[in-house]
Amino acid sequence: MKILIVGAGGTLGRAVAAELGQRHEIIRAGRASGDVQVDLRDSKSIEAMYAKVGELDAVVCTAGKVPFAPLGELTEEKYLDGLNDKLLGQVRLVQAGMDKLRDEGSFTLITGILTEQPILAGACASMANGAVEAYARAAAIELPRGLRINVVSPTVLVESMEGYGPFFRGFEPVPAARAALAFSRSVEGLQTGQVYKIW
Amino acid sequence: MKILIVGAGGTLGRAVAAELGQRHEIIRAGRASGDVQVDLRDSKSIEAMYAKVGELDAVVCTAGKVPFAPLGELTEEKYLDGLNDKLLGQVRLVQAGMDKLRDEGSFTLITGILTEQPILAGACASMANGAVEAYARAAAIELPRGLRINVVSPTVLVESMEGYGPFFRGFEPVPAARAALAFSRSVEGLQTGQVYKIW
Ligand SMILES: NC(=O)c1ccc[n+]([C@@H]2O[C@H](COP(=O)([O-])OP(=O)(O)OC[C@H]3O[C@@H](n4cnc5c(N)ncnc54)[C@H](OP(=O)(O)O)[C@@H]3O)[C@@H](O)[C@H]2O)c1
Ligand SMILES: NC(=O)c1ccc[n+]([C@@H]2O[C@H](COP(=O)([O-])OP(=O)(O)OC[C@H]3O[C@@H](n4cnc5c(N)ncnc54)[C@H](OP(=O)(O)O)[C@@H]3O)[C@@H](O)[C@H]2O)c1
Repeated sequence: MKILIVGAGGTLGRAVAAELGQRHEIIRAGRASGDVQVDLRDSKSIEAMYAKVGELDAVVCTAGKVPFAPLGELTEEKYLDGLNDKLLGQVRLVQAGMDKLRDEGSFTLITGILTEQPILAGACASMANGAVEAYARAAAIELPRGLRINVVSPTVLVESMEGYGPFFRGFEPVPAARAALAFSRSVEGLQTGQVYKIW
Repeated sequence: MKILIVGAGGTLGRAVAAELGQRHEIIRAGRASGDVQVDLRDSKSIEAMYAKVGELDAVVCTAGKVPFAPLGELTEEKYLDGLNDKLLGQVRLVQAGMDKLRDEGSFTLITGILTEQPILAGACASMANGAVEAYARAAAIELPRGLRINVVSPTVLVESMEGYGPFFRGFEPVPAARAALAFSRSVEGLQTGQVYKIW
């Protein structure tokens, strides 16, 4: 398969590229890094990326940022910022990619444990994740030509504990390589509309 | 209790006002109808409403619109429209209302079955609902002064089947009065961070 990974240079993306790269052709996309540049916040840049890379069998996303701040400090601007990046960035990838994937191709999006298990300062993250998961379940029943869509929702990664540890006290971290397996399951399996929880 | 119901003039809102009105003082808010006018898409209008109604024990929302369209026709503008109304409208109500509620007061927001059970043309609705539910779970752990927040997620209402029936073939509708009970449970109970599913 020919697989595009948006965010392939990141902590999770590198593990996903390593897992899928054993058996497939990988195209790495990132804002600054990778084989092709893209900014998920800009639909023109997404169109340009798809035009550059040509037909694909799978699109995987391991990118998406949200602001973290205590509930009382989350302004409308901050919420919009997070929605624009983690939610709409991934939605744009699907909406613009629908025509670019070969028959039976797949989208695999990224959320995280905060959809269901909230932490202090994480309301915008939870919101964006919840939206992505419900969107994927809905898109799954409408996508044409046997296209599929799933979501991977990992808990905090072992590799990220140095930075994120204080926000995730008591959470059992998982290695990025374990989360990467769920991307393989989505891309190389046949299910659709699933949220694979890695926790 | 003194309870503000935004959307009190609607199909669901009337049933909620009837249920809670048996035991409590109700202030009805709507865009055009009710005791006080508000547009959830406009944070200034929400601030003005709160200033007008004074201290409250509970804020209930039974408003929120999203565009329905097949997946391929859901443009970025349409997604933003739905997020601005059903998601951010309710989030604004909470963010601006946090200081206005008396100690131990509550917010009760509205979503619907589409978070989990998608229908054709409902991707924006599912997305907004999923976001509201995850936001409420997250806000619940951060709200100060014993404030609580829950969500009511009804399936299609008996009273709405004439209009919505074709989109919900095979769904078992519930009377608005039954969905209204969940609002009473949220406002008059003690739980927080819950999604009460009426289906
Ligand atoms: N790390 C964790 O513990 C964890 C746990 C659960 C879920 N997640 C989720 O997994 C995703 C990746 O996390 P991570 O820790 O691997 O992040 P990361 O190390 O910061 O990597 C993010 C990657 O995404 C790219 N990227 C960022 N913003 C982009 C944009 N607007 N357009 C296109 N590419 C963009 C970056 O490219 P450049 O470097 O070129 O800018 C980078 O390759 C996030 O959505 C995160 O919420 C992470
Ligand atoms: N009906 C169902 O079967 C069903 C099932 C599950 C979930 N829901 C959800 O329940 C909610 C209410 O549904 P409904 O059928 O009762 O709707 P409805 O009959 O159309 O009533 C909506 C109410 O909300 C008010 N409203 C609309 N937009 C507003 C805005 N931007 N700012 C402030 N107020 C606004 C309206 O006030 P004005 O009349 O003054 O404009 C009206 O009172 C919706 O979020 C819907 O998705 C409905």
